[in-house]
Amino acid sequence: MTTSPSTPVPRVLTGDRPTGPLHIGHLLGSLQSRVAMQASHECFVIVADLHTLTTRPQREHVGRLPANVRGVVLDLLSAGIDPQKSTIYLQSGVPAVYDLAILLQMLIPVSHLRSLASLAQMAKVAKLDDEHMSLGLLGYPVLQAADILMAQAELIPVGADNLAHVEIAREAAVRFNAMYGEVFPLPEGQSSRVQMLPGIGPDGPSASKMSKSAGNTINLGDAPEVVADKLRTLSGERLRSFIDALIDERERAEELVGEHQAGKLSDAAAHGLLIEAAEGLLAPLRERRAAFEGDQGLVEEILVDGTIRAREVAYGTLARVREAMGLEGLWKGLLDVAHERAEARKKPY
Amino acid sequence: MTTSPSTPVPRVLTGDRPTGPLHIGHLLGSLQSRVAMQASHECFVIVADLHTLTTRPQREHVGRLPANVRGVVLDLLSAGIDPQKSTIYLQSGVPAVYDLAILLQMLIPVSHLRSLASLAQMAKVAKLDDEHMSLGLLGYPVLQAADILMAQAELIPVGADNLAHVEIAREAAVRFNAMYGEVFPLPEGQSSRVQMLPGIGPDGPSASKMSKSAGNTINLGDAPEVVADKLRTLSGERLRSFIDALIDERERAEELVGEHQAGKLSDAAAHGLLIEAAEGLLAPLRERRAAFEGDQGLVEEILVDGTIRAREVAYGTLARVREAMGLEGLWKGLLDVAHERAEARKKPY
Repeated sequence: MTTSPSTPVPRVLTGDRPTGPLHIGHLLGSLQSRVAMQASHECFVIVADLHTLTTRPQREHVGRLPANVRGVVLDLLSAGIDPQKSTIYLQSGVPAVYDLAILLQMLIPVSHLRSLASLAQMAKVAKLDDEHMSLGLLGYPVLQAADILMAQAELIPVGADNLAHVEIAREAAVRFNAMYGEVFPLPEGQSSRVQMLPGIGPDGPSASKMSKSAGNTINLGDAPEVVADKLRTLSGERLRSFIDALIDERERAEELVGEHQAGKLSDAAAHGLLIEAAEGLLAPLRERRAAFEGDQGLVEEILVDGTIRAREVAYGTLARVREAMGLEGLWKGLLDVAHERAEARKKPY
Repeated sequence: MTTSPSTPVPRVLTGDRPTGPLHIGHLLGSLQSRVAMQASHECFVIVADLHTLTTRPQREHVGRLPANVRGVVLDLLSAGIDPQKSTIYLQSGVPAVYDLAILLQMLIPVSHLRSLASLAQMAKVAKLDDEHMSLGLLGYPVLQAADILMAQAELIPVGADNLAHVEIAREAAVRFNAMYGEVFPLPEGQSSRVQMLPGIGPDGPSASKMSKSAGNTINLGDAPEVVADKLRTLSGERLRSFIDALIDERERAEELVGEHQAGKLSDAAAHGLLIEAAEGLLAPLRERRAAFEGDQGLVEEILVDGTIRAREVAYGTLARVREAMGLEGLWKGLLDVAHERAEARKKPY
């Protein structure tokens, strides 16, 4: 989509690492608000394949990207991201982001990255001790900053644990603007509203958060009977968290949580209510998914078109960056003189 | 220049940061051997403007790049680098290097960079304490690795203090080849033969090494009377170091050093010998410099042509890298399916 310059619509950047299917936690925590934002914002939705390399550079993981990338795009479309309104794109298909990331690396002190708890957490999850953490992982927030700034995005909805990364992007924008002139709007993080959803399955250390890596998710593409079976594994506090998250009406949800706590609502009855609520959420997604899947090649076409659009925006931003820094002037100056010489040699006398 | 694939000539990468004029220390320590290498090797000579950003990203420093870049190329040409044999190119004009640097960052542990004494030294010279060292400076050896590996260079002549950086490039090549398949030849560092030249001028803490940043250099472009005046500032140990470095014949040099030490050769007499020797070295450079300067636009044309050539080599390497990693397959797969869909829609029934 294109925006008329006379009515600037604020740009949003959101996105996902293509490491596996998106789940109902993503839907409640992020996808629903992305869909709603499409009415008032121009959304860039990044499929961040390069980010997966920061913790999983191995060939076997890269080999899973084609299926995972397609799956994430299908998840996004089924959730209601409208390719007519939003730009869904593949990060590694936008070369200008690499340039921008390297240039921004000159502006961010290592000490600011070192102090990010989120990076330490990522390293821990990836089982990378201090000795093995790659420069790519340390630079991950700067690569994110390049994604955000190349899109000139102003609003960045993220999980609370990633707000600090948006701060790095903001720091890069502030420093760049101060050093080279105003190029970037200052991005602002927006923490997701909805509380974290616990995982399904038996109790355990990783049960407190639904996550792809813990394998305790209800996926957006799960069949109704799979969703029901997964919900039936819940009990106790986690079951109540699901009631709180899935039952739409606030008062009713609180009432049900109280009843379950007091033993007046059985697990089985609560499961029934959750299954109904989940179906209310997921049935429309299944319908859209079937439509997109039925149209052979449409998902790929949407991603390719979005990537080409993102590429144009990124080249535009990079041109302004190089211009402001003086790198473009350096190269143009050389070209001009070389061109003059070539022209002068053409003259017969 | 192009090399027939049937007779592979080993490729060399050397180069300089365009931070000011090259000096007689560069000539003896590096330029002379680069010129000699042209007979047996294909030389890539990088004008490393991006590297200057790692310690001097400020706009005022970038603003000096056009003059400094032109100056360095002229210095190289005057020293005898032959643009028919060697590829002189501008680092920031080769975008594929950014891509490659970001991808290689995924393979190099931060801990290996942290342990490099050379980086600590660079930070110290740039007056950057631990709090202010940028990610760009920490990643400097990986950016160098990208320069080296994009050129598929096998031999890297460097100062002894930079041998560790070539080891990082080698580590990146070894890891990449092991993880994704053989793409890179393993680069090998070659330490410069000639001892370091001290600076000219009064004694002081920075007098022990001729360096651009200390402002104690005899520049390749200095006029004869300037060179003579600078040489006349020398005395004692530094004067003897110059005798050792500038007097070509080994036996004669050692004899003169001994005589000066013993007080049998006066400073004035030694200055006379040094001035003569320096002129022997620099006069041919001045002649070539005048020829290149007299041909309006030639220096720029050589750099532009070299950069275009380097760009082609870099894109070729990047294509192989993306192919080996699986990133190219990911994108091609999307394009193919999208293309099939477009074709199918063209069919009337």
